[in-house]
Amino acid sequence: MSNSKSDFLGWMATIQERTESALSTILPESSIAPERLHDAMRYAVLGGGKRVRALLAHAAGELTDAPVERLDRVACAVEFIHAYSLVHDDMPCMDDDVLRRGKPTVHVEYDEATALLTGDALQTLAFQVLSEPTIAPTAADQLEMISLLARASGSRGMAGGQAIDLDAVGKAISRIELEFMHIHKTGALIRASVLLGARCGPACDADLLEPLDRYGKLVGLLFQVVDDILDAQSDTATLGKTAGKDADSNKPTYVSLMGLNEARALAESLHAEAHAVLHALAPRSSRLEELARFIVRRRF
Amino acid sequence: MSNSKSDFLGWMATIQERTESALSTILPESSIAPERLHDAMRYAVLGGGKRVRALLAHAAGELTDAPVERLDRVACAVEFIHAYSLVHDDMPCMDDDVLRRGKPTVHVEYDEATALLTGDALQTLAFQVLSEPTIAPTAADQLEMISLLARASGSRGMAGGQAIDLDAVGKAISRIELEFMHIHKTGALIRASVLLGARCGPACDADLLEPLDRYGKLVGLLFQVVDDILDAQSDTATLGKTAGKDADSNKPTYVSLMGLNEARALAESLHAEAHAVLHALAPRSSRLEELARFIVRRRF
Repeated sequence: MSNSKSDFLGWMATIQERTESALSTILPESSIAPERLHDAMRYAVLGGGKRVRALLAHAAGELTDAPVERLDRVACAVEFIHAYSLVHDDMPCMDDDVLRRGKPTVHVEYDEATALLTGDALQTLAFQVLSEPTIAPTAADQLEMISLLARASGSRGMAGGQAIDLDAVGKAISRIELEFMHIHKTGALIRASVLLGARCGPACDADLLEPLDRYGKLVGLLFQVVDDILDAQSDTATLGKTAGKDADSNKPTYVSLMGLNEARALAESLHAEAHAVLHALAPRSSRLEELARFIVRRRF
Repeated sequence: MSNSKSDFLGWMATIQERTESALSTILPESSIAPERLHDAMRYAVLGGGKRVRALLAHAAGELTDAPVERLDRVACAVEFIHAYSLVHDDMPCMDDDVLRRGKPTVHVEYDEATALLTGDALQTLAFQVLSEPTIAPTAADQLEMISLLARASGSRGMAGGQAIDLDAVGKAISRIELEFMHIHKTGALIRASVLLGARCGPACDADLLEPLDRYGKLVGLLFQVVDDILDAQSDTATLGKTAGKDADSNKPTYVSLMGLNEARALAESLHAEAHAVLHALAPRSSRLEELARFIVRRRF
């Protein structure tokens, strides 16, 4: 292992650990009423996940000299939104999945009504976290960050992508339509994670935001293409969620649309493009660079 | 009809109309993708409801000289949160209700997955609306307003109240427990509506916020007590939602706990207390006074 790779893995472990600790601190304790709801919220969020969105926020924030405590808040906000979307997405009326991060999904472990409220309350908590202590150079910047997270999560972002996804089941769609869906469903929040991290820092300016936005968009798509490849190749134990699910439920994926080899080639080309976009920001963008490489090389 | 009563009814109709128009403007058009989700969001929000929360926000804002355009934004935010909670609350895994405001509920008219996403996206839109144009004297005030809405809506506010409600079905609970549930489930958002309206204006200060908060808390409880009385007395056609539902599903209510006469006496005493709290703010608090009277006298 090269020094730089072991350094990256160390950095990643550090950020994952601080994120876990910040999430645990912000989530209400299970002993606070309503106990069952708080317990389910902690169950849904803690103890699992690669925390890709948190890592992206921290990596982008390092580029703008953002204080790490601010990045912890942003990391928690995007991870709460992500966790809420998983809890709702797993429910019987959506994907009806029983396994997530190697554990029973929230509606299986608790019940459907609790899963519904858990997702609802995690979304609220994300906005609460972004509104409270100072996390941006000015209060006006912080309002813009809240607006950015809302636009990325709502009907014209992540939730809209879920709706398009529902509508696409069993239909023949084009690669352009598939991309449109993923740009919303997964891409919008990943892109927002990068921008929100960057906006925490005093050295954030418009010249920086444009390539970062481009990078976020590429990495968001890359993440989904790799997800589709892994879903087609892996077994359930490795993934920690039900494998082959998308193909079984007749959902269009990059693999079903292009075949495995073409999908792999697409992932490589998105990675190369992300690499090129970061070139102008080097060497301060090295963490973002390493993260893109991590995303394209991941095995679970 | 006295002049003052006809003046109040005119004011109420004006605010309801401006709120309807503002909600319609802010909600994405049904022609924008994802069309079905946007259509369901409009269906869930528009064309119904007394808009009590919007009225309270406007009435409180008049007291602090708030520009009416700011109050429209706040009114939309609280109505979006309210609408999202109704859509999710009506779903089969929660109250399983088929009728709301005289129309089929969202999961009946569309489907369950769309109802889930509709509620999710309406919640997001509420926070987006509060984060965008200026609605408070300073950006820092506006951040505090977002935090206030989040606290009122989340696991220690409205969503928490729903969780307590679920847990209470079929159980014998005390009046104190019932009150605790309602303070969260309905009360927190009504209280927030009053405070958010007041905070839009330049004449908002701490001396004003304390009695307004007290008023909001009383009116929130009053609203629920009257709701329980109406649910026990009215028929489905008058209510626009399934009548007698709470008693049928073994949910504790003020009427089941205290009997109809005691519940009526409680409503009168909460109303008298709200009246007394407003005394210090007279005559500027006349709209809030009239609204409390409207809430205690309402027939649907």
